[in-house]
Amino acid sequence: MGAGRFITLEGGEGTGKSTLARGLAEALRADGREVLVTREPGGAPGADAIRALLVSGDANRWSATEEALLFAGARLNHLNHTIRPAIARGAWVICDRYYDSTRAYQVAAGGLDPSVLDTLNALIDAPAPDRTFVLDLDANAGLARSQGKHMGEDRFEKKAADFHARVRAEFLAIAERDPKRCIVLDASKPAADVLAAATAAL
Amino acid sequence: MGAGRFITLEGGEGTGKSTLARGLAEALRADGREVLVTREPGGAPGADAIRALLVSGDANRWSATEEALLFAGARLNHLNHTIRPAIARGAWVICDRYYDSTRAYQVAAGGLDPSVLDTLNALIDAPAPDRTFVLDLDANAGLARSQGKHMGEDRFEKKAADFHARVRAEFLAIAERDPKRCIVLDASKPAADVLAAATAAL
Repeated sequence: MGAGRFITLEGGEGTGKSTLARGLAEALRADGREVLVTREPGGAPGADAIRALLVSGDANRWSATEEALLFAGARLNHLNHTIRPAIARGAWVICDRYYDSTRAYQVAAGGLDPSVLDTLNALIDAPAPDRTFVLDLDANAGLARSQGKHMGEDRFEKKAADFHARVRAEFLAIAERDPKRCIVLDASKPAADVLAAATAAL
Repeated sequence: MGAGRFITLEGGEGTGKSTLARGLAEALRADGREVLVTREPGGAPGADAIRALLVSGDANRWSATEEALLFAGARLNHLNHTIRPAIARGAWVICDRYYDSTRAYQVAAGGLDPSVLDTLNALIDAPAPDRTFVLDLDANAGLARSQGKHMGEDRFEKKAADFHARVRAEFLAIAERDPKRCIVLDASKPAADVLAAATAAL
């Protein structure tokens, strides 16, 4: 993936991913690096148009496989137009959600066959991040924090509480399976502490 | 696929697919059958929203693989919400474009790896049509007929002339490879003759 770095932030609703993204970007820029902060789904014009289909409307608008296909299309557009070019020119890319979110939300909590996600990741040749921070927080605490923050973009928040508990458990399982890539951060701590732990790990 | 039938109409721009769909529906209804006329991409609320992303905008808006993922998502939504329920209750479904169009436009003319389409068809468990009519016409004649008919939905028409020639050649190759399913109709003939040939083959 060239001279840059690919860092992803993962975790449930309201765990502070966008706050950490801003903090990390500031710290890396102060260090003289080019930083690109982006997010999934979205992060490129085509992917943003797909995002609008994914994050709004009825919670059961799409089947798990339909959703996975849309995420894969948005992810590939994002990789082609934003992530790969930035990493190739040496930038550090900080991406708010990536394929671990698909595994947590669509596979573990949504019932998608894991082989579908594996097939789609292979099909779009999705690169593994150099580093993934998993922000861990009690699901109810996260939802309370997140409440009302995303006007109209609340399709996933509307899912039942046990859905979000399964999401949290899967993020922890992913980190346990891939400890070289993933670092779990305690998101119940103050944002400055979370940022300090993340910068220390880079 | 139950007691109904699944009939697809394939061919390039301006070959008369929607005219044939209307004529076939009328003939089948006169015969006492329930008929559902639908089209790809689209044919269900979710699939229609994806259609809007596929048929409008810049001709190079999506890469071949991005496009294939969006078509697969729309196709699965269409199958889940429209096609499978109709066939299950005994209706005859007439679908204007289906996976042969993906093979002609995205694989043969667009450069998509054929294994990507095969993988996606398997992933969504796409049923084979009972009968496919391939409307064959010189690509330039078809484009001239089609000109200005689809307000704003001209992303595919804007592709270069050799693209449309490759589309036509692939439709004929598909019919040659699968002669039990596919019947080629000469679309340069009057619509009534094309319809008569199609009804005779049902």
